[in-house]
Amino acid sequence: MKDLQNKNIEALRAGMASAGIAAAIIPQADPHMGEYLADHWQVRRWLSGFTGSAGTLVITADAALLWTDSRYFIQAAQQLEGSGIELMKDGLASTPSVVGWLGSHLPQGAVVGIDGMLLSVSDAEDMRDDLAQYGLTLDTSFDIIDSIWIDRPALPQDKVFVHDIRFTGCRAADKIASVLAEMSDHRAESIFISALDEIAWLLNIRSSDVRHNPVATAFLYLSPGRSVLFIAPEKLDSDTISYLASEGVTVQPYGDALKFISALPAGEKVLVDLTRTTITVRETLGDRAVGVGMSPVALPKACKNEVQIEGIRRAMVRDGVALVKAFMEIERRVKAGEPTTELDVVEIVHDSRAAAPEFVDDSFGCIAGYAAHGAIVHYEATAESNSALRAEGLLLVDSGAQYPDGTTDITRTISLGEATDRERRDFTLVMKGHIALAEMVFPDDTRGAQLDAIARQFLWKHGMSYLHGTGHGVGHFLGVHEGPQSIRLNYVNVPLAPGMITSNEPGVYVEGIHGIRCENLTLCVPAMTTEFGRFLRFETLTLFPFDRKLFDTTLMTDDEIAWVNAYHARVASELMSALENEPQRMWLAAATAPIVR
Amino acid sequence: MKDLQNKNIEALRAGMASAGIAAAIIPQADPHMGEYLADHWQVRRWLSGFTGSAGTLVITADAALLWTDSRYFIQAAQQLEGSGIELMKDGLASTPSVVGWLGSHLPQGAVVGIDGMLLSVSDAEDMRDDLAQYGLTLDTSFDIIDSIWIDRPALPQDKVFVHDIRFTGCRAADKIASVLAEMSDHRAESIFISALDEIAWLLNIRSSDVRHNPVATAFLYLSPGRSVLFIAPEKLDSDTISYLASEGVTVQPYGDALKFISALPAGEKVLVDLTRTTITVRETLGDRAVGVGMSPVALPKACKNEVQIEGIRRAMVRDGVALVKAFMEIERRVKAGEPTTELDVVEIVHDSRAAAPEFVDDSFGCIAGYAAHGAIVHYEATAESNSALRAEGLLLVDSGAQYPDGTTDITRTISLGEATDRERRDFTLVMKGHIALAEMVFPDDTRGAQLDAIARQFLWKHGMSYLHGTGHGVGHFLGVHEGPQSIRLNYVNVPLAPGMITSNEPGVYVEGIHGIRCENLTLCVPAMTTEFGRFLRFETLTLFPFDRKLFDTTLMTDDEIAWVNAYHARVASELMSALENEPQRMWLAAATAPIVR
Repeated sequence: MKDLQNKNIEALRAGMASAGIAAAIIPQADPHMGEYLADHWQVRRWLSGFTGSAGTLVITADAALLWTDSRYFIQAAQQLEGSGIELMKDGLASTPSVVGWLGSHLPQGAVVGIDGMLLSVSDAEDMRDDLAQYGLTLDTSFDIIDSIWIDRPALPQDKVFVHDIRFTGCRAADKIASVLAEMSDHRAESIFISALDEIAWLLNIRSSDVRHNPVATAFLYLSPGRSVLFIAPEKLDSDTISYLASEGVTVQPYGDALKFISALPAGEKVLVDLTRTTITVRETLGDRAVGVGMSPVALPKACKNEVQIEGIRRAMVRDGVALVKAFMEIERRVKAGEPTTELDVVEIVHDSRAAAPEFVDDSFGCIAGYAAHGAIVHYEATAESNSALRAEGLLLVDSGAQYPDGTTDITRTISLGEATDRERRDFTLVMKGHIALAEMVFPDDTRGAQLDAIARQFLWKHGMSYLHGTGHGVGHFLGVHEGPQSIRLNYVNVPLAPGMITSNEPGVYVEGIHGIRCENLTLCVPAMTTEFGRFLRFETLTLFPFDRKLFDTTLMTDDEIAWVNAYHARVASELMSALENEPQRMWLAAATAPIVR
Repeated sequence: MKDLQNKNIEALRAGMASAGIAAAIIPQADPHMGEYLADHWQVRRWLSGFTGSAGTLVITADAALLWTDSRYFIQAAQQLEGSGIELMKDGLASTPSVVGWLGSHLPQGAVVGIDGMLLSVSDAEDMRDDLAQYGLTLDTSFDIIDSIWIDRPALPQDKVFVHDIRFTGCRAADKIASVLAEMSDHRAESIFISALDEIAWLLNIRSSDVRHNPVATAFLYLSPGRSVLFIAPEKLDSDTISYLASEGVTVQPYGDALKFISALPAGEKVLVDLTRTTITVRETLGDRAVGVGMSPVALPKACKNEVQIEGIRRAMVRDGVALVKAFMEIERRVKAGEPTTELDVVEIVHDSRAAAPEFVDDSFGCIAGYAAHGAIVHYEATAESNSALRAEGLLLVDSGAQYPDGTTDITRTISLGEATDRERRDFTLVMKGHIALAEMVFPDDTRGAQLDAIARQFLWKHGMSYLHGTGHGVGHFLGVHEGPQSIRLNYVNVPLAPGMITSNEPGVYVEGIHGIRCENLTLCVPAMTTEFGRFLRFETLTLFPFDRKLFDTTLMTDDEIAWVNAYHARVASELMSALENEPQRMWLAAATAPIVR
């Protein structure tokens, strides 16, 4: 395996030499700037053998280095062992940036090569500026992988299917018309879209090109005169082609996109999202390109309509019912002493959801972290790491599903035995933050970063914290991570708005001991309008009880206890009639019984 | 009066015509980009007759317009009446921006003139870009005021005095050395400083050039070879000149600053703060200028040292004692039915503070707003508006002092009769926010904007809000408003850090009814260091009771009641022994008695 990678790297180096490239940068990216990649674009994995979801490979004539973040330090060290590739631990003060390393190892005037179809406009501009400080230049036309990766996986060929209007609530033709209506605000006439979730949402189409993300690999051009979808013909059957035609969309081969935009009239102004469009697309458009920091599709996609909201409510009942069965089974097995591992938990949760006819896919790789594994924020159990559950300690389960009527994402942390004081204290502090955010009322024009500390305040008072965001947007039968809004430490200049679905997931991770996260999805809704303006609030969408054993009510206010009891009463009332049998109903009744001081 | 202004404007127009200027912009600004101006720079007031602290005048051949914000809509309308100057209400959707108005009223190619010594680099760059969109150009050399304002007030000539090391805790020479030590980080050798508070802080000098701001009008150039203060010679006596020499600072006339920098060696790199340096200075430096978004002086000035902190603690005792006397007197007069107005309150508060030998000045114009006037956020009582107090309703008093050992700023809202339920509810909601912020613990690297909602959350739940910031930085015997940190809705990318003094002042303003604000100053201090890093908190510095009558304890948690009682106990213990007589001690004891449910 290692030999093969070295051969691949040697092939790359030969290409670099003939192209006059001193260093090649291989990012974890595709031409659509998505969070997850189809196999076809797993170039960094193919070259390095490192399988993590984040990392950048740099190859020079005599060095090979892989930058990745703390989530992957151990895994990368193992996978790179003996490969001759040096691990660069991103985020450590002692680790130079990619550009910093290149600057101190390449001679002035050297050329750094990258495939411009794997780099966003904004990143390319930053990288160019940074390299220039060291006298280095960036060549974004270095795209030789196709010629050296002999058995490269094909582009995804799964069929596209139509996402029915009874789920989307809005025709593609209407969405296209309203996006085009905004073009004049940007002094543009047309728009070229590379982001797969935006294309799927706009056209009401789905596929299965990216694991857990029901998108189709494509580009989309929209103008008042014509809408053109660039997609592999194999992915479309005649019904889909007819459907697209009925929405005013014609089809051309995926590979023709660049040729198409290079042939647009010279004076045409074409809008592109600078963060989700590649530098190659931008340069192919030339003077035609009008850059924008946030796509005009982002907000309408984020703000769900009534039909989508009704759909997600149905999906939440279905998801809650599946989780009742799953958690009952986990509890039963632990109590009975049946051997049960983290991977068993992943399977139980998956199977329980997959039993529903509406189930399409998990919405991400389930995180089932037992005891100390719960403290590894992006833990994914493997055959090697797989812990056996015991009748003690905490189990953190973060999971979700893709249903045609909505995407779910829920984290529950449960105690498998007698909860310790520390477990109850930490859990309760997390829940106090969760409740405070859930109860928040805030005026129009409030950004998520302004509310983030509301969820952290109780942990902070105890000298604890968590480094991930408190909330991310969630798509509708689309990415479980969706912009533009977020609730996090970092400032993002996007106000929360009615219809946005955002997670509420504070947590705390005590290394070597346990991890706790409590996550519900919420819907932003109007709260009231007064002489001071309009105020918004969060309505909790997720329907599943929190572990009653883990609340330390001595740390809670009456209002917090009342919130838990009201939420549990609602969970019981919404799920009870959908359960199949009396044991399930008894389990839910017990799990949602009021907590008391 | 109006005639005179029109004559002034005609003189300006004559100058515009001969300079080929189609429109002149007269900002409210001086060459030091401060918040308040000496009379010498009150050009906009002289031309327009409008005396407000914010506003921009625009003059064309046939039009004159004044932009100002909602605080001044009424005052400006009165002062502009009959002047022929049109009031442009800034902030209303229907009001164009200055540049927008110019763009739609001037022909393409027209030149807009402004005195580049009254416009920061960053504002100039924005204005140039914005004007260019309308085909207009900006001429920053239009500075004819000196030639047309015959009786223009002279530059301030008050004496400079040395701010003693026993107050500052750090020699000027040492501050200069540490600022220069940072120059290499900015790839600069020297620095040119225009901001008066930075110069005063760096050199440990004060004067009284700007109302309530003990600064001296000057520029400062620092390089490893020499430090030069540009200042009117009249302001310095021989002792001060000797002092400056002992700190390595030589003196040149104020008017020579531009000539001096234009004669610096061509290759010298000179750092300038883009927001507090004028475009004329920047252009005079030419290629020598290295721009920076935040002055290297800002953080060391904001983070007070131990000597400064001990000073501010003393100042707070002195200030609290003065306020005991003042509020006793206000209460006595209202109770006795002695005629007492808002202006009387201003005088009582001032006189009480001024009785202390250490008193130098008020730190800003006292706001004493009775009943509905309290709802006008920047209310300043005048002979016309002056309300008589009655034994009912709320009185808001926002005041502060300049002492050599510190600057104070405190707002108290008191009930003059029986508090109504609405008054108690609104006051308690404000105090709950004040207490929540005062009790906050937060990790290193937290920005004020992340904490702002902590203070607003209880008002928001009741559909109320306030539009001003929750907290501003405060100088040390310097500006009562000082950057770089703040706690407000708007994001400012400056983390809170130990030693920063910041106000905690939520409020609520119910138009036509009452205004409430509860303001203490706080010191940022380390709280603890855990495996999660270092955490900070606020220590309250201000020492004066809140009005016990206004707390509605049914709306408060036990912890909130305990905070009030602990704070009041501390106020009593720190002020009691400094009071002069038994009635004062009895008043304070009663005012700080525990509140109960």
